[in-house]
Amino acid sequence: MKYNVITISREFGSGGRTVGRLVAEKLGIPFYDRELVNKVALETGFATEYIEDAGEYAPVKSKLAFLLSFGHTSHVNGHSASGHIPPAEYIWATQSRVIKNLAEQGPCVIVGRCADYILKDRKDALHVFIHAPKEARAERIVRLYGETDCDPMKRLDEKDKKRRIHYDYFTSRPWGLSQNYTLSLDSEIVGVEKCADIIVDLVKNNAADGIVD
Amino acid sequence: MKYNVITISREFGSGGRTVGRLVAEKLGIPFYDRELVNKVALETGFATEYIEDAGEYAPVKSKLAFLLSFGHTSHVNGHSASGHIPPAEYIWATQSRVIKNLAEQGPCVIVGRCADYILKDRKDALHVFIHAPKEARAERIVRLYGETDCDPMKRLDEKDKKRRIHYDYFTSRPWGLSQNYTLSLDSEIVGVEKCADIIVDLVKNNAADGIVD
Repeated sequence: MKYNVITISREFGSGGRTVGRLVAEKLGIPFYDRELVNKVALETGFATEYIEDAGEYAPVKSKLAFLLSFGHTSHVNGHSASGHIPPAEYIWATQSRVIKNLAEQGPCVIVGRCADYILKDRKDALHVFIHAPKEARAERIVRLYGETDCDPMKRLDEKDKKRRIHYDYFTSRPWGLSQNYTLSLDSEIVGVEKCADIIVDLVKNNAADGIVD
Repeated sequence: MKYNVITISREFGSGGRTVGRLVAEKLGIPFYDRELVNKVALETGFATEYIEDAGEYAPVKSKLAFLLSFGHTSHVNGHSASGHIPPAEYIWATQSRVIKNLAEQGPCVIVGRCADYILKDRKDALHVFIHAPKEARAERIVRLYGETDCDPMKRLDEKDKKRRIHYDYFTSRPWGLSQNYTLSLDSEIVGVEKCADIIVDLVKNNAADGIVD
Protein backbone atom coordinates (compact mmCIF):
# COMPACT_ATOMS: atom_id res chain seq x y z
CA MET A 1 0.00 0.00 0.00
CA LYS A 2 1.20 3.49 -0.84
CA TYR A 3 0.26 6.22 1.61
CA ASN A 4 -0.55 9.55 0.04
CA VAL A 5 -2.41 11.44 2.71
CA ILE A 6 -1.22 12.00 6.26
CA THR A 7 -3.57 13.42 8.85
CA ILE A 8 -2.12 14.81 12.06
CA SER A 9 -4.38 15.15 15.08
CA ARG A 10 -2.80 16.59 18.19
CA GLU A 11 -3.19 17.80 21.72
CA PHE A 12 -2.81 21.55 22.15
CA GLY A 13 0.82 22.40 22.90
CA SER A 14 2.21 19.02 21.83
CA GLY A 15 4.09 20.29 18.78
CA GLY A 16 1.87 18.25 16.45
CA ARG A 17 1.59 21.07 13.95
CA THR A 18 5.40 21.27 13.75
CA VAL A 19 5.52 17.49 13.23
CA GLY A 20 3.07 17.89 10.34
CA ARG A 21 5.07 20.73 8.79
CA LEU A 22 8.30 18.73 9.03
CA VAL A 23 6.69 15.68 7.44
CA ALA A 24 5.38 17.78 4.56
CA GLU A 25 8.80 19.41 4.07
CA LYS A 26 10.66 16.12 4.17
CA LEU A 27 8.26 14.52 1.69
CA GLY A 28 7.96 17.66 -0.46
CA ILE A 29 4.15 17.64 -0.37
CA PRO A 30 1.58 20.35 0.53
CA PHE A 31 0.84 21.09 4.17
CA TYR A 32 -2.72 22.13 4.97
CA ASP A 33 -3.31 23.93 8.23
CA ARG A 34 -4.11 27.64 8.04
CA GLU A 35 -4.84 27.28 4.34
CA LEU A 36 -7.54 24.74 5.09
CA VAL A 37 -9.24 27.17 7.48
CA ASN A 38 -9.10 29.84 4.78
CA LYS A 39 -10.70 27.53 2.22
CA VAL A 40 -13.55 26.67 4.59
CA ALA A 41 -14.00 30.37 5.42
CA LEU A 42 -14.19 31.20 1.73
CA GLU A 43 -16.74 28.48 1.00
CA THR A 44 -18.99 29.19 3.98
CA GLY A 45 -18.70 32.95 4.04
CA PHE A 46 -17.72 32.94 7.70
CA ALA A 47 -14.64 34.76 8.97
CA THR A 48 -11.50 32.64 9.42
CA GLU A 49 -11.49 33.39 13.17
CA TYR A 50 -15.01 32.02 13.42
CA ILE A 51 -14.04 28.87 11.50
CA GLU A 52 -11.07 28.41 13.79
CA ASP A 53 -13.31 28.59 16.83
CA ALA A 54 -15.87 26.27 15.30
CA GLY A 55 -13.15 23.65 14.98
CA GLU A 56 -12.73 23.60 18.73
CA TYR A 57 -15.98 24.57 20.34
CA ALA A 58 -18.85 22.22 20.96
CA PRO A 59 -21.83 23.03 18.73
CA VAL A 60 -23.94 24.35 21.61
CA LYS A 61 -21.38 27.10 22.08
CA SER A 62 -21.20 27.75 18.35
CA LYS A 63 -24.96 28.12 18.24
CA LEU A 64 -24.81 30.71 20.98
CA ALA A 65 -22.00 32.51 19.21
CA PHE A 66 -24.05 32.48 16.03
CA LEU A 67 -27.14 33.91 17.73
CA LEU A 68 -25.06 36.62 19.37
CA SER A 69 -23.50 37.41 16.00
CA PHE A 70 -26.76 38.91 14.70
CA GLY A 71 -25.91 42.05 16.63
CA HIS A 72 -22.29 41.98 15.43
CA THR A 73 -22.22 40.89 11.82
CA SER A 74 -18.65 42.06 11.21
CA HIS A 75 -17.26 38.54 11.71
CA VAL A 76 -19.43 37.15 8.95
CA ASN A 77 -17.87 37.79 5.55
CA GLY A 78 -21.02 38.52 3.63
CA HIS A 79 -23.58 35.80 3.27
CA SER A 80 -24.55 33.58 6.17
CA ALA A 81 -25.54 29.94 6.47
CA SER A 82 -29.05 28.99 5.35
CA GLY A 83 -30.56 29.73 8.75
CA HIS A 84 -32.05 26.25 8.84
CA ILE A 85 -28.79 24.40 9.56
CA PRO A 86 -26.92 25.28 12.77
CA PRO A 87 -23.67 26.96 11.71
CA ALA A 88 -21.46 24.35 13.36
CA GLU A 89 -23.08 21.62 11.25
CA TYR A 90 -22.86 23.79 8.15
CA ILE A 91 -19.17 24.41 8.76
CA TRP A 92 -18.63 20.71 9.44
CA ALA A 93 -20.26 19.71 6.15
CA THR A 94 -18.21 22.25 4.20
CA GLN A 95 -15.02 21.31 5.99
CA SER A 96 -15.60 17.62 5.25
CA ARG A 97 -16.04 18.35 1.57
CA VAL A 98 -12.95 20.60 1.44
CA ILE A 99 -10.82 17.96 3.20
CA LYS A 100 -12.02 15.15 0.94
CA ASN A 101 -11.31 17.29 -2.13
CA LEU A 102 -7.79 18.14 -0.92
CA ALA A 103 -7.06 14.44 -0.36
CA GLU A 104 -8.33 13.69 -3.89
CA GLN A 105 -5.95 16.25 -5.39
CA GLY A 106 -2.81 14.36 -4.36
CA PRO A 107 -0.38 13.62 -1.55
CA CYS A 108 -0.60 16.07 1.36
CA VAL A 109 -0.42 16.54 5.13
CA ILE A 110 -3.56 17.80 6.86
CA VAL A 111 -3.43 19.05 10.45
CA GLY A 112 -6.43 18.98 12.76
CA ARG A 113 -10.09 19.60 11.77
CA CYS A 114 -11.04 15.94 12.48
CA ALA A 115 -9.41 14.96 9.17
CA ASP A 116 -8.61 11.54 10.66
CA TYR A 117 -12.32 10.84 10.91
CA ILE A 118 -13.32 12.53 7.66
CA LEU A 119 -10.76 10.45 5.74
CA LYS A 120 -11.13 7.27 7.78
CA ASP A 121 -12.28 5.25 4.76
CA ARG A 122 -9.34 6.20 2.54
CA LYS A 123 -7.05 3.21 2.37
CA ASP A 124 -4.11 5.40 1.39
CA ALA A 125 -4.30 7.63 4.49
CA LEU A 126 -1.98 7.38 7.51
CA HIS A 127 -3.52 8.82 10.65
CA VAL A 128 -1.25 10.19 13.37
CA PHE A 129 -2.03 11.45 16.87
CA ILE A 130 0.59 13.55 18.67
CA HIS A 131 0.30 14.00 22.42
CA ALA A 132 2.49 14.88 25.40
CA PRO A 133 2.19 15.07 29.18
CA LYS A 134 0.49 18.22 30.39
CA GLU A 135 3.54 19.60 32.18
CA ALA A 136 5.59 19.47 28.97
CA ARG A 137 2.82 21.12 26.96
CA ALA A 138 2.36 23.83 29.58
CA GLU A 139 6.07 24.62 29.49
CA ARG A 140 5.95 24.79 25.69
CA ILE A 141 2.90 27.05 25.32
CA VAL A 142 4.41 29.57 27.74
CA ARG A 143 7.70 29.44 25.82
CA LEU A 144 6.02 29.86 22.41
CA TYR A 145 2.96 31.99 23.12
CA GLY A 146 4.06 33.81 26.28
CA GLU A 147 2.40 34.16 29.68
CA THR A 148 -1.25 35.12 29.98
CA ASP A 149 -3.46 35.90 32.95
CA CYS A 150 -4.72 32.36 32.75
CA ASP A 151 -2.61 29.64 34.33
CA PRO A 152 -1.12 27.47 31.52
CA MET A 153 -2.38 24.23 33.09
CA LYS A 154 -5.88 25.70 33.16
CA ARG A 155 -5.56 26.85 29.55
CA LEU A 156 -4.64 23.30 28.56
CA ASP A 157 -7.55 21.84 30.53
CA GLU A 158 -9.97 24.11 28.71
CA LYS A 159 -8.48 23.47 25.27
CA ASP A 160 -8.35 19.70 25.84
CA LYS A 161 -11.94 19.66 26.99
CA LYS A 162 -13.17 21.70 24.03
CA ARG A 163 -11.37 19.54 21.48
CA ARG A 164 -12.63 16.36 23.12
CA ILE A 165 -16.25 17.52 23.19
CA HIS A 166 -16.12 18.84 19.63
CA TYR A 167 -14.55 15.62 18.32
CA ASP A 168 -16.96 13.38 20.21
CA TYR A 169 -19.94 15.40 18.97
CA PHE A 170 -19.10 15.12 15.28
CA THR A 171 -17.48 11.71 15.12
CA SER A 172 -19.09 9.72 17.96
CA ARG A 173 -15.60 8.40 18.69
CA PRO A 174 -13.57 9.07 21.83
CA TRP A 175 -10.85 11.67 21.31
CA GLY A 176 -7.35 10.22 21.32
CA LEU A 177 -8.21 6.52 21.16
CA SER A 178 -5.19 4.61 19.81
CA GLN A 179 -7.31 2.44 17.55
CA ASN A 180 -8.37 5.44 15.48
CA TYR A 181 -4.79 6.17 14.43
CA THR A 182 -2.07 4.31 12.57
CA LEU A 183 0.32 5.62 15.15
CA SER A 184 0.19 7.79 18.25
CA LEU A 185 3.35 9.34 19.61
CA ASP A 186 4.37 11.14 22.79
CA SER A 187 6.31 14.12 21.45
CA GLU A 188 8.06 14.77 24.76
CA ILE A 189 9.73 11.35 24.84
CA VAL A 190 9.98 10.62 21.13
CA GLY A 191 10.88 14.19 20.15
CA VAL A 192 9.24 16.32 17.46
CA GLU A 193 11.96 15.66 14.84
CA LYS A 194 11.92 11.93 15.52
CA CYS A 195 8.12 11.80 15.29
CA ALA A 196 8.43 13.28 11.81
CA ASP A 197 11.19 10.82 10.87
CA ILE A 198 9.11 7.80 11.95
CA ILE A 199 6.15 9.00 9.86
CA VAL A 200 8.29 9.80 6.82
CA ASP A 201 9.98 6.41 7.03
CA LEU A 202 6.59 4.67 7.12
CA VAL A 203 5.35 6.62 4.11
CA LYS A 204 8.54 6.02 2.10
CA ASN A 205 8.96 2.37 2.93
CA ASN A 206 5.26 1.74 3.32
CA ALA A 207 5.79 -1.13 5.71
CA ALA A 208 3.46 -4.10 5.94
CA ASP A 209 0.09 -4.99 4.49
CA GLY A 210 -0.98 -7.33 7.23
CA ILE A 211 0.09 -8.74 10.58
CA VAL A 212 2.89 -11.07 9.58
CA ASP A 213 4.64 -12.86 12.41
CA MET B 1 16.68 9.70 29.71
CA LYS B 2 17.59 6.05 29.43
CA TYR B 3 14.69 3.62 29.01
CA ASN B 4 15.12 0.31 30.77
CA VAL B 5 11.66 -1.13 30.95
CA ILE B 6 9.30 -1.61 28.02
CA THR B 7 5.69 -2.53 28.63
CA ILE B 8 3.64 -3.87 25.73
CA SER B 9 -0.14 -3.70 25.95
CA ARG B 10 -2.03 -5.11 23.02
CA GLU B 11 -5.31 -6.02 21.48
CA PHE B 12 -5.96 -9.73 21.15
CA GLY B 13 -4.70 -10.98 17.80
CA SER B 14 -2.62 -7.88 17.01
CA GLY B 15 0.76 -9.61 17.25
CA GLY B 16 1.74 -7.48 20.24
CA ARG B 17 3.30 -10.43 22.04
CA THR B 18 5.53 -11.09 19.01
CA VAL B 19 6.51 -7.42 18.95
CA GLY B 20 7.52 -7.70 22.61
CA ARG B 21 9.52 -10.88 22.02
CA LEU B 22 11.34 -9.30 19.05
CA VAL B 23 12.17 -6.17 21.08
CA ALA B 24 13.57 -8.30 23.91
CA GLU B 25 15.64 -10.38 21.46
CA LYS B 26 16.98 -7.36 19.63
CA LEU B 27 17.93 -5.64 22.90
CA GLY B 28 19.14 -8.85 24.57
CA ILE B 29 16.99 -8.34 27.67
CA PRO B 30 14.49 -10.62 29.46
CA PHE B 31 10.98 -11.01 28.11
CA TYR B 32 8.23 -11.53 30.68
CA ASP B 33 4.99 -13.01 29.48
CA ARG B 34 4.24 -16.59 30.50
CA GLU B 35 6.95 -16.39 33.15
CA LEU B 36 5.16 -13.48 34.79
CA VAL B 37 1.94 -15.50 35.03
CA ASN B 38 3.92 -18.35 36.60
CA LYS B 39 5.44 -16.04 39.18
CA VAL B 40 2.04 -14.66 40.17
CA ALA B 41 0.63 -18.20 40.33
CA LEU B 42 3.48 -19.25 42.59
CA GLU B 43 3.03 -16.29 44.93
CA THR B 44 -0.76 -16.47 45.16
CA GLY B 45 -1.12 -20.22 45.16
CA PHE B 46 -3.63 -20.09 42.31
CA ALA B 47 -3.22 -22.20 39.18
CA THR B 48 -1.61 -20.49 36.20
CA GLU B 49 -4.80 -20.97 34.15
CA TYR B 50 -6.76 -19.14 36.81
CA ILE B 51 -4.24 -16.28 36.86
CA GLU B 52 -4.44 -16.03 33.09
CA ASP B 53 -8.21 -15.73 33.25
CA ALA B 54 -8.06 -13.21 36.08
CA GLY B 55 -5.94 -11.00 33.85
CA GLU B 56 -8.80 -10.74 31.40
CA TYR B 57 -12.04 -11.19 33.21
CA ALA B 58 -13.83 -8.43 35.04
CA PRO B 59 -13.73 -8.95 38.81
CA VAL B 60 -17.45 -9.69 39.04
CA LYS B 61 -16.84 -12.72 36.85
CA SER B 62 -13.76 -13.67 38.85
CA LYS B 63 -15.78 -13.47 42.05
CA LEU B 64 -18.37 -15.80 40.57
CA ALA B 65 -15.63 -18.15 39.38
CA PHE B 66 -14.13 -18.07 42.86
CA LEU B 67 -17.44 -18.89 44.55
CA LEU B 68 -18.01 -21.72 42.11
CA SER B 69 -14.51 -22.95 42.80
CA PHE B 70 -15.47 -24.06 46.32
CA GLY B 71 -17.05 -27.13 44.75
CA HIS B 72 -14.09 -27.65 42.41
CA THR B 73 -10.88 -26.88 44.24
CA SER B 74 -8.67 -28.62 41.68
CA HIS B 75 -7.74 -25.34 39.97
CA VAL B 76 -6.32 -23.92 43.19
CA ASN B 77 -2.76 -25.08 43.81
CA GLY B 78 -3.01 -25.57 47.53
CA HIS B 79 -3.76 -22.61 49.72
CA SER B 80 -6.31 -20.00 48.76
CA ALA B 81 -6.51 -16.25 49.23
CA SER B 82 -7.36 -15.01 52.71
CA GLY B 83 -11.07 -15.26 52.11
CA HIS B 84 -11.51 -11.61 53.05
CA ILE B 85 -10.12 -10.14 49.83
CA PRO B 86 -11.87 -11.00 46.55
CA PRO B 87 -9.42 -13.14 44.56
CA ALA B 88 -9.23 -10.72 41.62
CA GLU B 89 -8.03 -7.97 43.97
CA TYR B 90 -5.61 -10.35 45.67
CA ILE B 91 -4.17 -11.41 42.32
CA TRP B 92 -3.97 -7.76 41.26
CA ALA B 93 -2.00 -6.80 44.37
CA THR B 94 0.41 -9.70 43.93
CA GLN B 95 0.80 -9.06 40.22
CA SER B 96 1.55 -5.38 40.87
CA ARG B 97 4.27 -6.33 43.35
CA VAL B 98 5.77 -8.94 41.01
CA ILE B 99 5.82 -6.50 38.07
CA LYS B 100 7.39 -3.71 40.16
CA ASN B 101 10.04 -6.14 41.39
CA LEU B 102 10.87 -7.33 37.89
CA ALA B 103 11.28 -3.74 36.72
CA GLU B 104 13.59 -3.10 39.68
CA GLN B 105 15.83 -6.01 38.73
CA GLY B 106 16.92 -4.45 35.44
CA PRO B 107 16.02 -3.88 31.79
CA CYS B 108 13.17 -6.06 30.52
CA VAL B 109 10.09 -6.28 28.31
CA ILE B 110 6.78 -7.00 30.04
CA VAL B 111 3.73 -8.00 28.01
CA GLY B 112 0.18 -7.39 29.20
CA ARG B 113 -1.07 -7.60 32.81
CA CYS B 114 -1.71 -3.82 32.96
CA ALA B 115 2.03 -3.28 33.38
CA ASP B 116 1.69 0.10 31.66
CA TYR B 117 -0.46 1.30 34.55
CA ILE B 118 1.47 -0.48 37.30
CA LEU B 119 4.73 1.11 36.09
CA LYS B 120 3.25 4.46 35.06
CA ASP B 121 5.40 6.39 37.55
CA ARG B 122 8.72 4.90 36.41
CA LYS B 123 10.49 7.58 34.43
CA ASP B 124 12.62 4.95 32.67
CA ALA B 125 9.65 3.00 31.27
CA LEU B 126 8.46 3.15 27.67
CA HIS B 127 4.82 2.14 27.28
CA VAL B 128 3.64 0.69 23.98
CA PHE B 129 0.15 -0.20 22.75
CA ILE B 130 -0.19 -2.49 19.73
CA HIS B 131 -3.50 -2.64 17.92
CA ALA B 132 -4.90 -3.58 14.51
CA PRO B 133 -8.20 -3.48 12.65
CA LYS B 134 -10.55 -6.29 13.61
CA GLU B 135 -10.53 -7.91 10.18
CA ALA B 136 -6.73 -8.28 10.27
CA ARG B 137 -6.81 -9.70 13.80
CA ALA B 138 -9.59 -12.14 12.90
CA GLU B 139 -7.58 -13.39 9.95
CA ARG B 140 -4.53 -13.82 12.17
CA ILE B 141 -6.19 -15.69 15.04
CA VAL B 142 -7.69 -18.20 12.62
CA ARG B 143 -4.28 -18.63 10.98
CA LEU B 144 -2.45 -19.08 14.29
CA TYR B 145 -5.00 -20.72 16.56
CA GLY B 146 -7.24 -22.43 14.04
CA GLU B 147 -10.99 -22.34 13.55
CA THR B 148 -13.37 -22.80 16.48
CA ASP B 149 -17.12 -23.09 16.70
CA CYS B 150 -17.19 -19.41 17.60
CA ASP B 151 -16.98 -16.87 14.77
CA PRO B 152 -13.56 -15.14 14.94
CA MET B 153 -15.14 -11.66 14.90
CA LYS B 154 -17.29 -12.65 17.86
CA ARG B 155 -14.26 -14.08 19.68
CA LEU B 156 -12.49 -10.76 19.21
CA ASP B 157 -15.51 -8.78 20.42
CA GLU B 158 -15.62 -10.85 23.59
CA LYS B 159 -11.87 -10.66 24.24
CA ASP B 160 -11.79 -6.91 23.55
CA LYS B 161 -14.70 -6.34 25.88
CA LYS B 162 -13.17 -8.39 28.70
CA ARG B 163 -9.81 -6.67 28.47
CA ARG B 164 -11.44 -3.25 28.37
CA ILE B 165 -13.63 -3.92 31.41
CA HIS B 166 -10.78 -5.49 33.38
CA TYR B 167 -8.43 -2.61 32.58
CA ASP B 168 -11.02 0.05 33.40
CA TYR B 169 -11.88 -1.64 36.69
CA PHE B 170 -8.33 -1.74 38.01
CA THR B 171 -6.87 1.41 36.53
CA SER B 172 -9.83 3.78 36.15
CA ARG B 173 -8.36 4.69 32.77
CA PRO B 174 -9.93 4.00 29.38
CA TRP B 175 -8.36 1.01 27.61
CA GLY B 176 -6.27 2.01 24.60
CA LEU B 177 -6.15 5.76 25.15
CA SER B 178 -3.12 7.16 23.28
CA GLN B 179 -2.15 9.44 26.12
CA ASN B 180 -1.37 6.46 28.37
CA TYR B 181 1.36 5.21 26.04
CA THR B 182 4.62 6.56 24.69
CA LEU B 183 3.61 5.13 21.37
CA SER B 184 0.68 3.23 19.91
CA LEU B 185 1.09 1.38 16.64
CA ASP B 186 -1.22 -0.31 14.15
CA SER B 187 0.57 -3.60 13.50
CA GLU B 188 -1.29 -4.25 10.25
CA ILE B 189 -0.02 -1.08 8.59
CA VAL B 190 3.27 -0.62 10.41
CA GLY B 191 4.13 -4.33 10.45
CA VAL B 192 5.21 -6.43 13.43
CA GLU B 193 8.94 -6.32 12.60
CA LYS B 194 8.83 -2.56 11.99
CA CYS B 195 6.95 -1.98 15.26
CA ALA B 196 9.81 -3.73 17.04
CA ASP B 197 12.42 -1.71 15.11
CA ILE B 198 10.77 1.61 16.02
CA ILE B 199 10.73 0.67 19.72
CA VAL B 200 14.33 -0.61 19.69
CA ASP B 201 15.50 2.55 17.96
CA LEU B 202 13.79 4.70 20.60
CA VAL B 203 15.37 2.72 23.43
CA LYS B 204 18.85 2.78 21.88
CA ASN B 205 18.84 6.40 20.80
CA ASN B 206 16.60 7.51 23.61
CA ALA B 207 15.28 10.46 21.66
CA ALA B 208 14.19 13.73 23.24
CA ASP B 209 13.66 14.93 26.78
CA GLY B 210 11.10 17.56 25.98
CA ILE B 211 9.12 19.05 23.13
CA VAL B 212 11.77 20.91 21.20
CA ASP B 213 10.64 22.65 18.04
